[in-house]
Amino acid sequence: MSVTAAKGFTAAGVAAGIKANGNPDLALVVNAGPRRAAAGVFTSNRVKAAPVLWSEQVLKTGELRAVVLNSGGANACTGPQGFQDTHATAEKVAEVLEIGAGEVAVASTGLIGVPLPMDKLLPGVEKAAKELSEHGGEKAAIAIKTTDTLHKTSVVTTDGWTVGGMAKGAGMLAPGLATMLVVLTTDADVDAPTLDKALRDATRVTFDRVDSDGCMSTNDTVLLLASGASGATPAYADFAEAVTRVCGDLSRQLIGDAEGASKDIRVEVVNAASEEDAVEVGRSIARNNLLKCAIHGEDPNWGRVLSAIGTTNAAFEPDRLNVAINGVWVCRNGSVGEDRDLVDMRYREVKITADLAAGSESAVIWTNDLTADYVHENSAYSS
Amino acid sequence: MSVTAAKGFTAAGVAAGIKANGNPDLALVVNAGPRRAAAGVFTSNRVKAAPVLWSEQVLKTGELRAVVLNSGGANACTGPQGFQDTHATAEKVAEVLEIGAGEVAVASTGLIGVPLPMDKLLPGVEKAAKELSEHGGEKAAIAIKTTDTLHKTSVVTTDGWTVGGMAKGAGMLAPGLATMLVVLTTDADVDAPTLDKALRDATRVTFDRVDSDGCMSTNDTVLLLASGASGATPAYADFAEAVTRVCGDLSRQLIGDAEGASKDIRVEVVNAASEEDAVEVGRSIARNNLLKCAIHGEDPNWGRVLSAIGTTNAAFEPDRLNVAINGVWVCRNGSVGEDRDLVDMRYREVKITADLAAGSESAVIWTNDLTADYVHENSAYSS
Repeated sequence: MSVTAAKGFTAAGVAAGIKANGNPDLALVVNAGPRRAAAGVFTSNRVKAAPVLWSEQVLKTGELRAVVLNSGGANACTGPQGFQDTHATAEKVAEVLEIGAGEVAVASTGLIGVPLPMDKLLPGVEKAAKELSEHGGEKAAIAIKTTDTLHKTSVVTTDGWTVGGMAKGAGMLAPGLATMLVVLTTDADVDAPTLDKALRDATRVTFDRVDSDGCMSTNDTVLLLASGASGATPAYADFAEAVTRVCGDLSRQLIGDAEGASKDIRVEVVNAASEEDAVEVGRSIARNNLLKCAIHGEDPNWGRVLSAIGTTNAAFEPDRLNVAINGVWVCRNGSVGEDRDLVDMRYREVKITADLAAGSESAVIWTNDLTADYVHENSAYSS
Repeated sequence: MSVTAAKGFTAAGVAAGIKANGNPDLALVVNAGPRRAAAGVFTSNRVKAAPVLWSEQVLKTGELRAVVLNSGGANACTGPQGFQDTHATAEKVAEVLEIGAGEVAVASTGLIGVPLPMDKLLPGVEKAAKELSEHGGEKAAIAIKTTDTLHKTSVVTTDGWTVGGMAKGAGMLAPGLATMLVVLTTDADVDAPTLDKALRDATRVTFDRVDSDGCMSTNDTVLLLASGASGATPAYADFAEAVTRVCGDLSRQLIGDAEGASKDIRVEVVNAASEEDAVEVGRSIARNNLLKCAIHGEDPNWGRVLSAIGTTNAAFEPDRLNVAINGVWVCRNGSVGEDRDLVDMRYREVKITADLAAGSESAVIWTNDLTADYVHENSAYSS
């Protein structure tokens, strides 16, 4: 279903030959309207890939008619030629679809610092355009995979309108926003400013709270396109909720498929003085390599949680901190709590609760354990 | 040599039975004077172990007659009982040496959140006191090891006076200051304020620039004791240089023995607008798990260096960044530079140079690669 679950959209995914192994590597998503509203959020990494710079620019109109995405190369740190390649890609899409290049967003993912093989990519665009279909969502989702073992899609349908989407991402997964590439579509009749607000509200509490490995990508892109084809005009709250549900579902799928991970870790920070404090503490816990190793070893090592909390600027008193792992309060008042042998860590999902005892705000950050498989996968990635 | 290289100091290292495996686990260092000046720097982690809180307090006088250190337990996150245990340890040292408890610093290292076995530790203090010797420095250095494979000592002798020291530390190694436990001694005749300044000047550019795994300990302690026994009164610059050399040497030994590491990585940031920028960028590179995996795989993946730089607030323009790995400028002006196949990464030491092209300041941060052995060692640490 993916990006074609909503009415008014077609998509395709093809093998253009960008990837040496012949796997699908080029996706096209087209909004047939009647509306062509769009919004996007992008990596806050200051080293931005050429397609990010391009897409930020074209989105200033609040309209998009198409998105072209490739895996097999990030087109990041590729200099002026990289930007020309992105421009040429958009021009090619514009040519085959008889639209303007300024109506085409571009997204790329793969290795940084390698120019794209344009002699393969441009013919791939022609091929994808020929295969555009209202049933092409799955193929598009498959074509944007890199080290992903699964393709990721999500759909929410309610009251005659739909929000659907696809995502890729398995490593370099610490959005600021965001992680990876995501295209969301809706057939609700929503204007660009509303799309923008709904998308920012949603990503702030979903993709922005995924932190698999602390490494922020140069290519993170999340786009939301509205066709208006359902004719429905949902209330903002309903629309935002649907977008947030799809983003949350895709975020969860990203964590579940993170490189080499054996555990999905839900870090919940409660009783913080502010939401910012809760996020800062959650992120510090999520990025603590020693803790991530301990969780991999099914060791409820709460001392590493406390040492991570201690490096933050959040409001708390060390002797009032409480920590639960999978519901067992192994740390009470900054010291030894319930018996750590009571903690059952056999399952993939592990829940860490950090109680700052400093207020009433909370936040959830999702992360993964740190494993030898992660090391192996990322030691050999570009060789 | 270690802490007994300087005249006026005795030391001992014994097996008190704190460690289940019977290895040495308790060290004692005593300053026989005539001077008893001392200074210390401690972890900036807000969750501080009981011995850190104690030692910070007793150091306010600027004098110490003894330091007692134990491995086999950090006495961190152990509540009021933990502080009482530290106090009782200092009282025991005071009793056997016939001095005041307020003249005794305490340092502990090992697992967080486990009470110390005082029934073993206190007799260990008596045993260590009986073995105090002017040749006890090596044994003391051995007794403070945890996962260290080697004990770490360093000595600089010049113009009739000496600075020597010992260190332990192999994991949770991201000082803010500092890493781990370090005791430095000197027989130079230096007062406490001067010791304090020399120690802070030294640690700022040595221990504070070691970042093996991004995880800051609750127990980091660096002490510097002066006996004045040489009668020498060196100029500040000479004394500070000697302290910095010893700290630099010990820092380098810590990196060389970091848990599971196969590479020591020297991250040098040059042409930064400020030293703070250089340190921020160096630390961001040093903490990038994906890059650390790539270095482990001997992959000169400069894209991961750029993506790490891009997450900082330092002054730079993305298209002016240059990166060299082992002297080969694989990234020029934010894009592809010299052939990455020219980079020889067979040796343990790897040098990454990041040129921000934004000024004339620089800094060096030392880190390690991320390996499956690190994961294995830290998945099983407390079980």
